Amino acid sequence: MEHPVYITNSLTRQKENFIPLNPPHVGLYVCGPTVYGPPHLGNARPYITFDVLRKYLTYLGYKVRYVRNITDVGHLESDADEGEDKIAKKARLEQLEPMEIVKLYTDLFHLAMEQLNNDKPSIEPTASGHIIEQISMIEKIIANGLAYESNGSVYFDVTQYSKQHHYGALSGKVLDDLIAGAGEEQRVLEGQEEKRNRADFALWKKAMPEHIMRWPSPWGLGFPGWHIECSAMSSKYLGETFDIHGGGMDLQFPHHEAEIAQSQGCNHVAPVKYWMHNNMITIDGKKMGKSLGNFIHLEQFFTGNHPLLTQAYAPMTIRFFMLQAHYRSTLDISNQALEAAEKANQKVMNAFGTLHKLKPSSNNTANIPDIRKQITTALNDDLNTAIALSHVFEMVRLINAAYAGIEQLSEQTIAEFTSIYHDFVFGVLGLRNDQTGDSSDVTGLMDLIIAIRTEARNKKDFATSDKIRDALAQLNIRIKDEKNGVSWIKD
Amino acid sequence: MEHPVYITNSLTRQKENFIPLNPPHVGLYVCGPTVYGPPHLGNARPYITFDVLRKYLTYLGYKVRYVRNITDVGHLESDADEGEDKIAKKARLEQLEPMEIVKLYTDLFHLAMEQLNNDKPSIEPTASGHIIEQISMIEKIIANGLAYESNGSVYFDVTQYSKQHHYGALSGKVLDDLIAGAGEEQRVLEGQEEKRNRADFALWKKAMPEHIMRWPSPWGLGFPGWHIECSAMSSKYLGETFDIHGGGMDLQFPHHEAEIAQSQGCNHVAPVKYWMHNNMITIDGKKMGKSLGNFIHLEQFFTGNHPLLTQAYAPMTIRFFMLQAHYRSTLDISNQALEAAEKANQKVMNAFGTLHKLKPSSNNTANIPDIRKQITTALNDDLNTAIALSHVFEMVRLINAAYAGIEQLSEQTIAEFTSIYHDFVFGVLGLRNDQTGDSSDVTGLMDLIIAIRTEARNKKDFATSDKIRDALAQLNIRIKDEKNGVSWIKD
Repeated sequence: MEHPVYITNSLTRQKENFIPLNPPHVGLYVCGPTVYGPPHLGNARPYITFDVLRKYLTYLGYKVRYVRNITDVGHLESDADEGEDKIAKKARLEQLEPMEIVKLYTDLFHLAMEQLNNDKPSIEPTASGHIIEQISMIEKIIANGLAYESNGSVYFDVTQYSKQHHYGALSGKVLDDLIAGAGEEQRVLEGQEEKRNRADFALWKKAMPEHIMRWPSPWGLGFPGWHIECSAMSSKYLGETFDIHGGGMDLQFPHHEAEIAQSQGCNHVAPVKYWMHNNMITIDGKKMGKSLGNFIHLEQFFTGNHPLLTQAYAPMTIRFFMLQAHYRSTLDISNQALEAAEKANQKVMNAFGTLHKLKPSSNNTANIPDIRKQITTALNDDLNTAIALSHVFEMVRLINAAYAGIEQLSEQTIAEFTSIYHDFVFGVLGLRNDQTGDSSDVTGLMDLIIAIRTEARNKKDFATSDKIRDALAQLNIRIKDEKNGVSWIKD
Repeated sequence: MEHPVYITNSLTRQKENFIPLNPPHVGLYVCGPTVYGPPHLGNARPYITFDVLRKYLTYLGYKVRYVRNITDVGHLESDADEGEDKIAKKARLEQLEPMEIVKLYTDLFHLAMEQLNNDKPSIEPTASGHIIEQISMIEKIIANGLAYESNGSVYFDVTQYSKQHHYGALSGKVLDDLIAGAGEEQRVLEGQEEKRNRADFALWKKAMPEHIMRWPSPWGLGFPGWHIECSAMSSKYLGETFDIHGGGMDLQFPHHEAEIAQSQGCNHVAPVKYWMHNNMITIDGKKMGKSLGNFIHLEQFFTGNHPLLTQAYAPMTIRFFMLQAHYRSTLDISNQALEAAEKANQKVMNAFGTLHKLKPSSNNTANIPDIRKQITTALNDDLNTAIALSHVFEMVRLINAAYAGIEQLSEQTIAEFTSIYHDFVFGVLGLRNDQTGDSSDVTGLMDLIIAIRTEARNKKDFATSDKIRDALAQLNIRIKDEKNGVSWIKD
């Protein structure tokens, strides 16, 4: 098969032709959430990005196995291997068994993914469900001389690894800086004295007596480090080397750098052919952070229940907003930008309705572009959804112009536009019209109400038409009189 | 706190006062599905039954931790410890990694549970995620002299166990019959020759070379037996002895009998205080079975897409139907019975609408019963939802009679009935009106349409009122003129 896609490989910093290891199969691994709190805006971008990538590769005929994990143990509060496990801490605060926390927030995460119209992954392994695989991998790394036990914990020996491999190849970090701890506060960190070197990272941590989440291991009771889970689960379900590993740019270091070192240190091969990283989101120009008061949960966007938000935003508004930027660009979110995205998505959806009402002409007017080719060209170029959307808008403009009688579209072009909506707007980009609830009944009832209103107005019965307008306003439904008929929108 | 509930304990065959081990906490474990196919009718009854139990105990003020597992490995096709793993076989047939099968059918199961309005469990552990805990438990049972290794597999030694304990106490099976294999075909079964006795069951099975799902263990590569997972996961999340273990009656033997033996053999204590079992479902008087062609998936009920079904049945119809019988009774399903359940549920839902329209009288008519007390008395008596529903129907009758002017209800009684709907109809029983889609918008638009129609009729404008009737008919919505106003129903 042909391989038309180019993607930017974070490891080589080059745009590379994407050729899978075993076409038509594609192995895709994306780091999933640590389930200790409600899903937030930072969860939306990577999962929307890689959902679109998977949908596009599937559209092209690849068979994608998409593995996205659930981190339900081992993610410590600090990247320096000290502090409390994030989930155990939350459990202590909420007086629940850690696995109740895991269940609660995994379910909320799944709900948010569904609302954002992200397809479910093929496999969704949990860290706690793969302790054996992690222990086996650690044992091999120790046997290969690249990890050591210290006081019931096991650490990866970065210095030893660096004698043969380039630790920092992905992130651009320099080992000497890491060892010196340059730029970090010179704190005395719990557990740091067990390491041979400051840059070493934990593969296994000894459980303190207060730790509920613990398993037996060759090094005593403990729990796995955060990084090893992704190496163990990706190799189990996708093989020792697989095609694409995705995640947010904030995971490049230490998480992904550690994954490369662990897999190389265990299996003597590089684990990933293409590394892809989405860029970060800012809010009103500022970094997101709990201490900054601008850390907004997805559900707060959907309800509008946050002091920084002037209204509720439908999940599709968030999705549309994300797709308007290339995944490697930073993205600044604001009420203004979201309102614009909401209108733009609605415009795309409305045009699909208009498309169905068009009367085909015998010929197209001149210069109707090949929209499908333009969209695939954009997506082939490092998944440029921003450019792809601009071509969707050109299609929307043509549809509206045809409806206004300014352009003519043939039956064939109308059919092709319909197909493009299904393949790309609803398909690969995963957009939909979710502002009207149960659309079939509501749409049917609205058609009836609009017909009654039109008849009332024709009869100059403005009392009735005003009554309808007021009653609809109470349901937040607005009727708009347009050139070729009446449309409505639910605010 | 008081403990008003009585439940039939399958182990003692007595109705017993339910007194939890650590009130107000209640530990509830229910055997979850083996995720190798779409959820079917047999999955509906236990999960509805124990969902109602959990909701009722929560209503009474207990704090319930509800653990329901996912069996994603180890459930062999035959209870005699031979044959292929159900999930691995399905994977081979569908050419997928077993964990893709697990993900697919776990998601479908979750969807069906949501459609049936079963709340999510507190913890949902997977068998494959608890291999270490299962191995630890097996090691203890071996150390206690109640299991033995044979050719890379480990079997529970039922004969040895029976010297001190009553194997068969739950199921009423007699050990000598099990050893003789009375009533079974005298087949030579793969793996049977490894056992000391025919009644012994597998704790760990050696993996054949073609087995994909395998883990290292002290006995070599293999996978756990089906029964040990529930013992390992229930004790991990609920303690060595916990309050209630639920499941279908078909699981009493060998699964639950084995669970008792394993836990007793490992921890020297009985694992469960109260065993609860729901009875089986028949279809048109016949046992369900794949070979009988009457094995109906839940989704087929919801779409009506099965030769035995004359129409689609909403999830709430299935739920209502199940609740009309006591959980310990057998239940025969048929189109007639489901149609009746559909109408009955709709009647209960409609009466809630009517309740809101009632004008309170200064006093009740005589003999208005204490419905809340009647319902709780029924539920206290071994969760008798059938009797509880009969009292709901008495309330429905009173509401409709009051609407027709035959009875009078005071403001206080109307408020109490409203509260009973929330606490019991929507709450504990988990019923809802799911035949109208997105009810808020649809209800609002219908109110407007009915108002327009009423005004048209008052003005003798029958052209408009007929047009409304016809347009609604196209949406399968029927308007009914009743004594005190207009109601509507979606067919």
